[in-house]
Amino acid sequence: MKTKFPSEKHYELLAKDFPSVDSDITKSYLEYILICQKTIAKIESYLSKIEMTNSQFLILLCLYVSDKNIDNITNISKKLGISNVTVSNVVKTLQIKGLVERKKLKEDKRFSRVVLNKKGKDFMKNFIPEYYSKYKGLFKEFDKEELLQLQFLIVKLNLAIESMSGKEKFWW
Amino acid sequence: MKTKFPSEKHYELLAKDFPSVDSDITKSYLEYILICQKTIAKIESYLSKIEMTNSQFLILLCLYVSDKNIDNITNISKKLGISNVTVSNVVKTLQIKGLVERKKLKEDKRFSRVVLNKKGKDFMKNFIPEYYSKYKGLFKEFDKEELLQLQFLIVKLNLAIESMSGKEKFWW
Repeated sequence: MKTKFPSEKHYELLAKDFPSVDSDITKSYLEYILICQKTIAKIESYLSKIEMTNSQFLILLCLYVSDKNIDNITNISKKLGISNVTVSNVVKTLQIKGLVERKKLKEDKRFSRVVLNKKGKDFMKNFIPEYYSKYKGLFKEFDKEELLQLQFLIVKLNLAIESMSGKEKFWW
Repeated sequence: MKTKFPSEKHYELLAKDFPSVDSDITKSYLEYILICQKTIAKIESYLSKIEMTNSQFLILLCLYVSDKNIDNITNISKKLGISNVTVSNVVKTLQIKGLVERKKLKEDKRFSRVVLNKKGKDFMKNFIPEYYSKYKGLFKEFDKEELLQLQFLIVKLNLAIESMSGKEKFWW
């Protein structure tokens, strides 16, 4: 059993020191960022055993479901909410692993697209069912309705993040 | 408006290629890791403007609410779900910033604790209300009941992560 943090006592202390701060929002915020962090850490720890990272997997998945398994850096970046620079770097690693290739556009040689090749597709065909057998455990305490609730709340979180990006450049 | 990823079409393709994989679980999983990643990226981007990181903030908060503002590396690591090594490194950065100090134990000089000093406490007193005015935006689409739903689902996610850590060392 892990130490509960923040505990009810901690929230009471924060409520006393910061009367202008809504405790319910703060509780949701802290628990939400802690679980985001723990989940990402767990995933990275698992994927590192097969020399994979979360970003690598998501880019491979993005290409796997794309038309003709082709997409460009900017689109992938928008879909995953990862910066262009990071996507470019991760794509380079995936090229070294032989899972993806760069293809120059016939119309304009300055631009190129990323293609999931045969080796990449085969990797995903084997890996997705294996990965599923692990990640399904994350939701083992959830019933059908709770899975839908989670999806619904994620839509609202996405809306908040997207609407705020526009207004203030430096903050969601 | 961002490109919806994965789209319903993408999920249909995955369901066709992987009949043994439950689409509802996969949908929840992908949307969940994407929102975790986007949220962490947004927070890091905001905090970087004031030369702060998410881990630095969480460690400061951990000390702020602790008895006498003192705790040790192992406890902080357990509370936040961050590795001992990372906590040690972040604490070093916070020492350089002058926000925390290391205190050797009288009983055993080999062990030391981390203390939030006056400058650290003052920083948090100013920063928390300012930070709140930003992070409350994340839940602007949530009503009271939905905030509670989120907290409830996070408890279940935490349970899953904790119970699985024990069984398989390398995976939740």
